[in-house]
Amino acid sequence: MCELLGMECNVPTDIVFSFSGLALRGGRRGPHADGWGLALYDGPAVRTFLEPAAASDSKLAAYVRENPIKTLLAIAHVRKRTRGKICLANTHPFVRELWGRSFTFAHNGTVKGVPARARGRFSPIGDTDSERAFCAILGRLEESLPGYPKDAAGKRRMWEVIARAARDIGRGGTFNFLLGDGTHLYARCATRLHHIVRKAPFKAATLADEDLMVDFAEVTTPRDRVVIVSTVPLTRDEVWAQGEPGSMWVFDGGRLRATLRA
Amino acid sequence: MCELLGMECNVPTDIVFSFSGLALRGGRRGPHADGWGLALYDGPAVRTFLEPAAASDSKLAAYVRENPIKTLLAIAHVRKRTRGKICLANTHPFVRELWGRSFTFAHNGTVKGVPARARGRFSPIGDTDSERAFCAILGRLEESLPGYPKDAAGKRRMWEVIARAARDIGRGGTFNFLLGDGTHLYARCATRLHHIVRKAPFKAATLADEDLMVDFAEVTTPRDRVVIVSTVPLTRDEVWAQGEPGSMWVFDGGRLRATLRA
Repeated sequence: MCELLGMECNVPTDIVFSFSGLALRGGRRGPHADGWGLALYDGPAVRTFLEPAAASDSKLAAYVRENPIKTLLAIAHVRKRTRGKICLANTHPFVRELWGRSFTFAHNGTVKGVPARARGRFSPIGDTDSERAFCAILGRLEESLPGYPKDAAGKRRMWEVIARAARDIGRGGTFNFLLGDGTHLYARCATRLHHIVRKAPFKAATLADEDLMVDFAEVTTPRDRVVIVSTVPLTRDEVWAQGEPGSMWVFDGGRLRATLRA
Repeated sequence: MCELLGMECNVPTDIVFSFSGLALRGGRRGPHADGWGLALYDGPAVRTFLEPAAASDSKLAAYVRENPIKTLLAIAHVRKRTRGKICLANTHPFVRELWGRSFTFAHNGTVKGVPARARGRFSPIGDTDSERAFCAILGRLEESLPGYPKDAAGKRRMWEVIARAARDIGRGGTFNFLLGDGTHLYARCATRLHHIVRKAPFKAATLADEDLMVDFAEVTTPRDRVVIVSTVPLTRDEVWAQGEPGSMWVFDGGRLRATLRA
């Protein structure tokens, strides 16, 4: 099993505090020593930091913590290998371009039955079930919609397409995932996923795995909204909402916009 | 104008020495302060380090120099903005998946007349002429070939398709580029491009812009072959081959495999 971390905000925010909690689980506090990755959006483009090795000892992960990059949307992953060997091609998050945007995907669990050459034009580069599933979702999106939707009704249709694809693929196993499209963060819960919306009045929080504390009141303005999604709650003194198996959250602007059956 | 750097080898090699020379030009010794990027292949997958800011002062560029990653194929770029604003989406090298491989592209020059929605399925994420041209090359590849070629004749056809696309797009301006497909490095010369093949007997070399010297004999074995392609020669004590305008080199295994009209 792997662990997922997502962030979606209404003002550019750095993910260092939460990423520190996740990175600890990548080898030191957890069994997830087979790779880690972090995707940080800047508009419709994304930059990734990927390493097929434990995050806890990683100099690159230390660099990322010491040189925070602010973003509206981020997805991170620490990997415990289940399918596919340990190599860069199998390191989440995966990225593909669709409709002139970077789509980004990270998965927790194992799914069977997704064909290697999924419907549509997207092909896996590595040999994980996760990347196959990502390609299948993108293929479904491209075949179902004429382009990235511009209005609310179109967006709702896009969310439904993703939810349906999640449900179909999820029949083949355990399909917890985070998906980013440059605007929305989609978080699908098969077994275990949590989220929290941090907003005014901000308080202090302490990492569950370490005595690292941040007083968010000192680093935010009253109108900031920051969503954090994580496999398990990352802090020990905040209340996290637990995902319902077979559902998908859609976040935008630091708000939960919809919860779909998925 | 921008500067290009490519490396293609028969054994995993780090690009630190050459990248140091390029990074110096990214702000300190040259006018290319508007961004830099480095793509390092690991099999068919690639990892990128991208920053829409000067390489010379960059902590990330320093990280890359201090923590060398060995690779068979690398492409780097420092940018002096000509078209498109300074942002991540406009930072070379660009990456797209085709046939289950990461293709990587960096451009020096300006080309006009490439449609925003190029033929084929690839769409630009940013607003540079360079990314449009890359999408057009990939569209041409996908429409011309059934998949990544497996034999020598198929590879030769693929090289010809790329050369033809380069020629067509190059009519619209200055089209020096580096393209990687996970196996080959393609280097198209419109105005200015140089290469060198380092092989036994290895000697010492000194960076043109700095008193940094490496004795390659100390860090290589007799069967190593390392191709370096660069806009201008990076060392002052080696003999670099100059590209013929309207031609494209194809490198594989640390050897020049073909020079095509392009």
